[in-house]
Amino acid sequence: MKRLVYFISDGTGITAETLGHSLLSQFTDVAFELNTLPYVDSLGKAQEAVEEINLRGTERQCLPIVFSSIVNPVIRNHLATAKAQTLDLFERFLPALALTLDQQPKQLVGQSHSIDNNPSYTQRIEAVHYALDNDDGQQLKDYENADLILVGVSRCGKTPTCLYLALHFGVRAANYPITEEDMHKSSLPSALQAHRHKLFGLTIDSERLASIRHERRANSNYASFEQCDYEVRFVESILKKSRIPYLNSTHLSIEEISAKILKNTGFNRHIA
Amino acid sequence: MKRLVYFISDGTGITAETLGHSLLSQFTDVAFELNTLPYVDSLGKAQEAVEEINLRGTERQCLPIVFSSIVNPVIRNHLATAKAQTLDLFERFLPALALTLDQQPKQLVGQSHSIDNNPSYTQRIEAVHYALDNDDGQQLKDYENADLILVGVSRCGKTPTCLYLALHFGVRAANYPITEEDMHKSSLPSALQAHRHKLFGLTIDSERLASIRHERRANSNYASFEQCDYEVRFVESILKKSRIPYLNSTHLSIEEISAKILKNTGFNRHIA
Repeated sequence: MKRLVYFISDGTGITAETLGHSLLSQFTDVAFELNTLPYVDSLGKAQEAVEEINLRGTERQCLPIVFSSIVNPVIRNHLATAKAQTLDLFERFLPALALTLDQQPKQLVGQSHSIDNNPSYTQRIEAVHYALDNDDGQQLKDYENADLILVGVSRCGKTPTCLYLALHFGVRAANYPITEEDMHKSSLPSALQAHRHKLFGLTIDSERLASIRHERRANSNYASFEQCDYEVRFVESILKKSRIPYLNSTHLSIEEISAKILKNTGFNRHIA
Repeated sequence: MKRLVYFISDGTGITAETLGHSLLSQFTDVAFELNTLPYVDSLGKAQEAVEEINLRGTERQCLPIVFSSIVNPVIRNHLATAKAQTLDLFERFLPALALTLDQQPKQLVGQSHSIDNNPSYTQRIEAVHYALDNDDGQQLKDYENADLILVGVSRCGKTPTCLYLALHFGVRAANYPITEEDMHKSSLPSALQAHRHKLFGLTIDSERLASIRHERRANSNYASFEQCDYEVRFVESILKKSRIPYLNSTHLSIEEISAKILKNTGFNRHIA
C-alpha cells in the first residue's frame, strides 16, 4: 500500500513539491502516492483540504504526510489540524530567519513564483525565445548574443539542457549539432571558431545514444550503434583537440547537466 | 549593503535555492546577494565553503545566511561550523519524517534531481520534444497525441508555458497561435474542432501584448495597440463562444500559469 503524501501550498505548489520530493527521495524502500493541492489560500479551502486528508487517511488506515508552504499563519494552523504528519516550510524556518534579519516577514502569498518578486523573469523568458531561435538546425545562428553554445551530436541532450538553462537561470544558450558535413573536416566547424570561449561540449555513451535514436527512428542508419559510435568518437576527438570543456550526459538529468555546466563556466544563476 | 546568502548543496543546488528563495521572498525590504555552491560533497569542499563564508561575512561585518540541503551528516555538521545562520532542510525535517515512516533515511547524495529517482524523467524529456515539434507555426500538428493544446494570440505566453509544462510535469502540450487567417471566420479553427476537450485558452491585456510585441518588432503593425486589441478581442470572443476555459496571463509567471492550468484541467503532476 502506497503511503499518502500531500504537497499543499497557497501558491503554485512548486516549492512544497521540491522540498518534499527531496526529503522523500531518501526513503527509496517506501512507495508514495503523491498529491498536490495548489492555491489553498482561504480558510474554506484549508477546511476542504483537511477533510480530504482525514477521509483518505482513514480509508488507508495510515497517517498521511503533508509538506506545506503556507504563508498565512491562520490558514497554516488550520491545516495543521489535519490528522497527518505535517511539515511546513514557513513554520520551521521563518522564525529563525526573521530573528537574524531583525524583520517581520510580510506574509505575502504567492511571492516565490510571481513575476514581481523575480527581477530576472523577463530575462528568463527572453532566454527561452533565444534558445528556441538558436536550436538545432535553425537557420538563424545569433551566436554573438549567446552566453553559451552547447556542441554535440544529435540527441545527446543539448536542446532540453538549453531550455532548462534558459527557463531557470536566464542563460542564453544556443546549441550546435555536429553533422555529417562537419565530420568531413577534422577541425572545429567554422561557424564556431570565433566563439570558442562560449563553447561547451556534451557527449554520451554510444550505446545509450543508439537506444535514444532508435526510439525516434527505429532501425535507421542514424540509430545504428556503428553510426552513433563514429559520431561520438569524432565529437570527443574534436572537443579534446580544441580544448573545449565537456561532460558525458549518459547518466545525468538535465537539472544535473545544467548545474554542472553553470559550475564549470561560472555563470551567475538567476534563480527562478 | 546587501545581505550575503549562500545556497549550498551536495547536488545541483536547486532544492536549496527553491527553499531559500521562497523564504527570502517574505522579506521584501531587505536586499540580498545570492550565491550558490553546488556539489559540496566532501569534507574538503565543505571546508572551502566554510572558509569562503567566514571570510566574506567578516568583510561585510554581517552574519551570512546559509540555506543548505546536505544529505551526509558529517559534511552537514562541518558546514554548520561556519559563522552563519544556517538553515538545513535535512536537519530540520528528516528526523520527523524518519519517525513517521519508521525507516532510516538512505543518505543517498544527489537523489532528488537524478534520473534514477524520477520514474517520469523520460516522459518529461519526450514531452519537451513533443512541445518543440508542436510549437507555433510548425508544420506538424500531432494533436492526437497532445494532452493539452494552448490557444491564443502570438506572444501571449503559450510557448514558454508549454515548455514549462513539459519539462516539469511531463505534460504533452501543443500550442496553436490564432492567426489573421483564422480571424476571417467567426468560429473555432477547423484544426482544433476535433480536439475541443484538450483546448485551453490564454489571453492577455492588449496594452501588455503591444509592449511585448514592440520589443520583438518595434513600430510594426503587429505591435500596434489597435492590432493587438483586435486580436485579443477576437480570441476572447471565440473562447467564450466555444466555452473553452481560459485565463489571462498578463500578471502571471509561467510557473503560475502552468499551476493554474494543471489545477483547472486536473492533470497529474509528474513532479521533477
